[in-house]
Amino acid sequence: VMQPISIPGVPDDYHPSQGWRPLPHHLSKQEIWQRIRQEAKADADAEPTLASFLYSSILGHSSFEKSLNFILANKLASPTLYSTQLVKIIEDCFKEEPSIVEAALADMQACFDRDPACDKYTQCLLYFKGFQAIQCHRIAHHLWGKGRKMLAVALQSRISEAFHVDIHPAATFGRGILLDHATGVVVGETAVVGDNVSMLHHVTLGGSGTGKGIRHPTIGHGVLLGAGVSVLGNVTVGCGAKVGAGSVVVSDLPCHSVAVGVPARIVKQGSRSE
Amino acid sequence: VMQPISIPGVPDDYHPSQGWRPLPHHLSKQEIWQRIRQEAKADADAEPTLASFLYSSILGHSSFEKSLNFILANKLASPTLYSTQLVKIIEDCFKEEPSIVEAALADMQACFDRDPACDKYTQCLLYFKGFQAIQCHRIAHHLWGKGRKMLAVALQSRISEAFHVDIHPAATFGRGILLDHATGVVVGETAVVGDNVSMLHHVTLGGSGTGKGIRHPTIGHGVLLGAGVSVLGNVTVGCGAKVGAGSVVVSDLPCHSVAVGVPARIVKQGSRSE
Amino acid sequence: VMQPISIPGVPDDYHPSQGWRPLPHHLSKQEIWQRIRQEAKADADAEPTLASFLYSSILGHSSFEKSLNFILANKLASPTLYSTQLVKIIEDCFKEEPSIVEAALADMQACFDRDPACDKYTQCLLYFKGFQAIQCHRIAHHLWGKGRKMLAVALQSRISEAFHVDIHPAATFGRGILLDHATGVVVGETAVVGDNVSMLHHVTLGGSGTGKGIRHPTIGHGVLLGAGVSVLGNVTVGCGAKVGAGSVVVSDLPCHSVAVGVPARIVKQGSRSE
Repeated sequence: VMQPISIPGVPDDYHPSQGWRPLPHHLSKQEIWQRIRQEAKADADAEPTLASFLYSSILGHSSFEKSLNFILANKLASPTLYSTQLVKIIEDCFKEEPSIVEAALADMQACFDRDPACDKYTQCLLYFKGFQAIQCHRIAHHLWGKGRKMLAVALQSRISEAFHVDIHPAATFGRGILLDHATGVVVGETAVVGDNVSMLHHVTLGGSGTGKGIRHPTIGHGVLLGAGVSVLGNVTVGCGAKVGAGSVVVSDLPCHSVAVGVPARIVKQGSRSE
Repeated sequence: VMQPISIPGVPDDYHPSQGWRPLPHHLSKQEIWQRIRQEAKADADAEPTLASFLYSSILGHSSFEKSLNFILANKLASPTLYSTQLVKIIEDCFKEEPSIVEAALADMQACFDRDPACDKYTQCLLYFKGFQAIQCHRIAHHLWGKGRKMLAVALQSRISEAFHVDIHPAATFGRGILLDHATGVVVGETAVVGDNVSMLHHVTLGGSGTGKGIRHPTIGHGVLLGAGVSVLGNVTVGCGAKVGAGSVVVSDLPCHSVAVGVPARIVKQGSRSE
Repeated sequence: VMQPISIPGVPDDYHPSQGWRPLPHHLSKQEIWQRIRQEAKADADAEPTLASFLYSSILGHSSFEKSLNFILANKLASPTLYSTQLVKIIEDCFKEEPSIVEAALADMQACFDRDPACDKYTQCLLYFKGFQAIQCHRIAHHLWGKGRKMLAVALQSRISEAFHVDIHPAATFGRGILLDHATGVVVGETAVVGDNVSMLHHVTLGGSGTGKGIRHPTIGHGVLLGAGVSVLGNVTVGCGAKVGAGSVVVSDLPCHSVAVGVPARIVKQGSRSE
C-alpha cells in the first residue's frame, strides 16, 4: 500500500528515493549563509568562550564558500599539507566545480531534516565529522578526476586520520548525504552512492575479489544503512531500501525493501510507505 | 542457582548489578592520588624518556583534580578551544559538581578491577582513551544541564575527534564505567547507562525513529556489552545482563540474562551467579 | 581438490598459508628503497604541492630506515613524547632488532600484492594508517620485550589515538601483515598472528575471561579476516582460513576453511584452492 509523502509545493508522488531536489522548506545558499551567520552571532553572544572560534570560522568570512573552505582546511592541516596550501586547493576546486558547494548545501539540509540531534546549521558545519568528511571527499574526488591522484590519496589518508572515515577518492556520492556519527565508515573505489542516502557509523561499502571492474556496491537514492552494516561486492541496494544495524548484504536488495541479518534477508518487500 | 559474591566487609548479597559502592579494596581519593604519584615517580625514575611528561601531567600538580584537569584539557585542546580555556571550564565544572570527580575515581577503580590489561592507576589516567572520553563527557553533560548547549556540542565533537567516541551530551552515565578500547562507541541523546557498566569498543546505544521522547536504550547496573554490540531504540537491558560480541538488541532483556546474535536471543535466563 | 599456486621460481606447493617468504617478484631492501625514491621524485615533479612533504619524508633521507623512522616519529609525536625523542627510540629499536625493518619490508610487499587500491610503495609508506600502526606496534612490542613496559603502553595509547588501532604491546605479529583501512582494529595481550595475515577494519582479536594464561586467539598463516570480524578467546583460526565480514568466531576453525555468521559456522571445508 503505497502512501506517497505529500508536501505542499512538491508533486504528490515525490519520494526521497527519486533523488535529491530542493523542498519547499529548504533554504537557498544565501538564506543558509544568512542563517549560519545569525546562529553564530547568537552563539558568540551567549557563549563568549566560543566567540573567537566562531569569528575565525564563520563571522570573519564574506561567503559560505570561504567559511567552509577555512573550516575544512583547518581540519585537514598536517605536516603533509599546510592549511595555506589546503585553502588554495579547496578554493580552486570550488571554482572549477561549483556543484561541490551545492552538494554541501544539500548535505546540510539532509543533516537538518534527518538527524534528530541537529537543530542548527552551524552544528552540522562546525561539529559533525561526517559532514566534514564527505565535503573533503568531494574535493579529493574532484582532484582524482583531474588526474591529480597522489594529492587525492594524500587527502583520503588525512580524512581517515582526522575523521576516521576512509573513502576512496574514486567513489561517487550523490547529494543530500547524511553520515551520522561517521566513525569507521569505509567506502571502496568503485562504489556509487545515490542521493539522500543516510549511513550510520561503521558502515562498509566493501570489495569482493581483486579483479578489475566494478567490485563495490551501488546504493540507490534514499537508502538507509544502519550502524555497522557491510555491503560487499558488486551488488545493488535498490532505492529507498533500509538495512538494519549489523547486517551483511552480499546480494541485491529490491527498491523499498527492508533487510536484516548476517547475511541479510529481506523481511519486508518494497513499499513506498516505508 | 544464585551464588552471591562474598567480599569481606560487604554484605553477602551485594552484586555489581545493584549499583556502584566502594568495596573494601577500593582506595579513597587521597589514597588514589598518593598511589598515582608513587607510580608516576617510579615510572619517571625507571623511564627517563617519560619523566617530563609525568612531571607536567601528575607530579607537578597539587591534587588529583588539577592533574585530571590538565590531562583532559591537553587532550581536548584544538583551534576550537585552547587548553587555557578548557582548564577554566573544567575547573568550574569540578567546583560546581564535585560528583564528577567522584565518578572519575569510581571509573578508575572499575578499570583497575575489571580490565585485565590495567595494573596501574596511571595507565588508566594517562593512557586509556575510554576513561578520558567518559570524563570529558561528564563535563559536557554538566554544561548541557546548565543550558550551555553549544559549548557541550563543541566538546562532544572534539571528544569524537580525539577519542573516536561519540556520546551525546544529554546522555546519562552512572559510576564505575569501563569503556574498554573505546574506538567507535556511539551513545545517543536519551540513553541512560547505570553503574558498573562495561562496554567494549564499537558499542552503539542508538535511536530508532525520530520522534520526541525516549528513543534510546536504558542499560541497567552491572551490564556487560561485548565488542560491536548495538542496542537500538527505547529498550531496557536489565541489571547484570551480558550481551555477546556483534549482537543487535532490539527488545528488552531481563536482569542477569545472557543474549547473543543478530537479532539477539536470550541463551541463558537470569542468574546472579553469572 | 587442492590446486597449489604456481609461481615461476617458487616450489609448486608454496601457499601463503605456509608462512612468509620472498617471492620472485619481491624486491630487496635496496630495490624497494630505490623504487620509493623514484616514486617520490616523480610525484614531487608532478605534484609540487606535495614536494616539500616528499622531500622531508623520503628524498632527504639516506636510507629506508631513516625515512621510515622520520615518518613514524612524526605520526606519533605528541605532548607525551616529542618527535626527537621518538626518532631516538625508533633508531635504537631498528639497531637492536633489525628484523623489525625486514618485517616492514614484508608488510609493504603484502600491501602491494594484496590491496587492489595500492599500486605504489610510497602509498603504503606515507598514507596507509594500517601499515604505519603495525610498524609502530613492532616498536612497542620490542620495548615491551625489553621490560620497558610503561613506554610500550604509552606508545600503544598513542597508536590508538593516531591510527584508531589498539594493539596490546605484548601481542605477537608475523610478517607480510595487511591491516586494510584499519579503523577500529583491536588486538589483545596474548594474541598471536601468523605471517601473511590480512585483516580488514574493525577486526577484534579479543579476550574471554580475565584469568591468567592465553585468553586471546591464535591466527594462522595466510588467514583473511573480513570487516568487523570478532575472534574471541583462546581459539585458533587455522592457516589459510577465511572469515566473512561481521562474523563472530568463538571456536577453532580448521585450516583453509571458510566461515561466516554470528556465531561463525563453517560453510566450506579446507581446500588449498581457496
